[in-house]
Amino acid sequence: MSLDSERTIQELKALRELTGDEHGAQRVAFTDTWVAARKFLTDRLAELPVEVHTDPAGNLWATLEGESNKELLIGGHLDSVPNGGWLDGCLNVLAGLEVLRRVAAQGKPPVTVRLVDWADEEGARFGRSLYGSSAAGGNIDISEMRKLRDRDGTSLEDALARVGVTLGNAPEARSELKHAAAYLELHIEQGPVLEGLGLPLGAVLGTFGVERHIITFHGQAAHSGSTPMNVRRDAFRAAGQFSQEIYVIAERHGGVCTVGSCKTLPGIVTSVVETCEITLDQRHLDAGKLAAMWQDAQEAAQRFAGEGGCTVTFGDLWSIEPIPFHPELIEAADASILDVVPRSHRLPSGPLHDAAEVARAGVPTVMLFVQSLRGISHNSIEDTEEAHIRQSVEALDRLTDRAMAWIGGT
Amino acid sequence: MSLDSERTIQELKALRELTGDEHGAQRVAFTDTWVAARKFLTDRLAELPVEVHTDPAGNLWATLEGESNKELLIGGHLDSVPNGGWLDGCLNVLAGLEVLRRVAAQGKPPVTVRLVDWADEEGARFGRSLYGSSAAGGNIDISEMRKLRDRDGTSLEDALARVGVTLGNAPEARSELKHAAAYLELHIEQGPVLEGLGLPLGAVLGTFGVERHIITFHGQAAHSGSTPMNVRRDAFRAAGQFSQEIYVIAERHGGVCTVGSCKTLPGIVTSVVETCEITLDQRHLDAGKLAAMWQDAQEAAQRFAGEGGCTVTFGDLWSIEPIPFHPELIEAADASILDVVPRSHRLPSGPLHDAAEVARAGVPTVMLFVQSLRGISHNSIEDTEEAHIRQSVEALDRLTDRAMAWIGGT
Repeated sequence: MSLDSERTIQELKALRELTGDEHGAQRVAFTDTWVAARKFLTDRLAELPVEVHTDPAGNLWATLEGESNKELLIGGHLDSVPNGGWLDGCLNVLAGLEVLRRVAAQGKPPVTVRLVDWADEEGARFGRSLYGSSAAGGNIDISEMRKLRDRDGTSLEDALARVGVTLGNAPEARSELKHAAAYLELHIEQGPVLEGLGLPLGAVLGTFGVERHIITFHGQAAHSGSTPMNVRRDAFRAAGQFSQEIYVIAERHGGVCTVGSCKTLPGIVTSVVETCEITLDQRHLDAGKLAAMWQDAQEAAQRFAGEGGCTVTFGDLWSIEPIPFHPELIEAADASILDVVPRSHRLPSGPLHDAAEVARAGVPTVMLFVQSLRGISHNSIEDTEEAHIRQSVEALDRLTDRAMAWIGGT
Repeated sequence: MSLDSERTIQELKALRELTGDEHGAQRVAFTDTWVAARKFLTDRLAELPVEVHTDPAGNLWATLEGESNKELLIGGHLDSVPNGGWLDGCLNVLAGLEVLRRVAAQGKPPVTVRLVDWADEEGARFGRSLYGSSAAGGNIDISEMRKLRDRDGTSLEDALARVGVTLGNAPEARSELKHAAAYLELHIEQGPVLEGLGLPLGAVLGTFGVERHIITFHGQAAHSGSTPMNVRRDAFRAAGQFSQEIYVIAERHGGVCTVGSCKTLPGIVTSVVETCEITLDQRHLDAGKLAAMWQDAQEAAQRFAGEGGCTVTFGDLWSIEPIPFHPELIEAADASILDVVPRSHRLPSGPLHDAAEVARAGVPTVMLFVQSLRGISHNSIEDTEEAHIRQSVEALDRLTDRAMAWIGGT
């Protein structure tokens, strides 16, 4: 049996029919719809010569035994955000399923090949993304996880118990990576870069490091009618200057910077803004440049505050280091793309993915991106041209052979 | 009996003791504390040869009959905002009381002199300022007023009934201005201009016209990690440019412009801002220049939106035309200030005052401003140096004589 990339499209559509509604995909982790999506997968895995089990964190593994106990992992996630798209996460799993079919049909492979469906990549319900892969990667703090509640007050622990998972045992999933020699993940880009270049596929260099901070400008409330312009200490003016400067900083260092939210106090039409709080999200693939971007941002904020008679304070929200993928697997990804289409492109991943947790755990990792239309995801209008989906399945298939050969040679 | 400006300070302090607490003045209109403040005033008026009554809108009038039935009005308001200052509104009334004492002590004046305590200047409870003076000025819509509720759901109509006023009869207060020939009002500046110039007193040119609008920039939400800077349609960036431009516009036309509030959607750290809504408050003493400022603001907003791949829409909040005071009374106010201190200054009023409603009704009007420390009012730390308060009472006294002479000559 040879690879049938059209079957992946048909299975994606069947899954959409089964687990979506008029607002989009509804496969939020640990819900009944997610359980139905998993059954859709296990029904198909049952036709293959693979061992299937759920690990102590709730990740689903299908193992095709090979000549060597060294393992090539192919991963994705069936869970979605509420009102999500038809591709985010499940393309990865169903493309991996098709590749597993093709490899299994050729007899015992040289290395063991495993498909993994990570549990709760999105973190849509409990606000903690990459749950399953971070458990397997050993990057999980159970006492922190025990505190998580959804908006109805249900704990993550209770939601896991409902699907047969004991949160306290989740760190035992670590043993699943014991023999992992390489990890592959196909994903939609969720951004506009490949579409802008007119290219279907790209090899991913790694995931951006992220610095997230709150920046608060402190000025002086003053009556909008009685206060001359030249004596104002206008916190919004300083924030407005900063909103321009992030474009200069991003260009200087080759990263991205975003002010995503702005709150003003007292926030009334008749007063100069006394306090202006903004969020800043900065991302870069290089740790040194990421640090330099945050340094530049602080200096700029200090400068604009000082020029406008204001002061500024900084608060930390979250940060993560850049996670570069494996250089030889990036080469292999590029070569595999070129087997399928005339041009490839290397790009970093802005969003985090399960691949980042696996790479962080020391497993050589690479991802393939397929073009997203309009760069939109986490939305029912998320889409990718079907020709590109077929090409992405084929590239993952080529990469699987290259990765098996690479593992054999290491 | 000669003018005793020190007595005004003692009476201001006594009123503070009677109607304030540790958070500031609590003379919100129509409350028991406000009624107590009025009794404080009428107890003192009872010692003078004046007729006292409350008009159908709830304004309190004290009339010292003169040789002519032409009337000189001196006004202020005893009501305060919650947690207000010790001077805003009541300085005007108690300075007027002291001037009335001085005039009465000299026998029957050439024109009739009246002190008025306007009802609910602040609008702190029902959100409609200048209630009493607008009723007397004929600028009141009873059907709109009937809709007003405080945060507990009590209607203005019921609050008025409790102090013996029938809202439906308020327009009859119009007759109080029938013989008005001039109106004087002393007020703290509530801004930093006189303090910045080191001057105790200023003559007010009129009240600013106001244009208040909502400006909404519409961009595109996009992932903060996956969206390159050069394809972003960032609504906050456009608003940030606008926040700088209002300083240019204000300087070009000699008015003031304020962005007082900013709201962002989706307003999350991981997304480019799709929608950014700001408020704009513009003020000028010249109607043509006010219109030009609003025109410039719209053009700038369109330009910044267009440059950043966004669009912009505009909504109206409120507007009022500029209300210039009487040129000859401004001259008289300047001259009266120079009787008391070495230098005067002419300035517009940013905030509205009861004087604006009286002037709008066609009564020749002028105001005196006395310096505010730090430009702060509507706050318990509102303050003015006592020497300046004494000088302000003295300047009002000098202006009263000049205005009486001016009325006699018209």
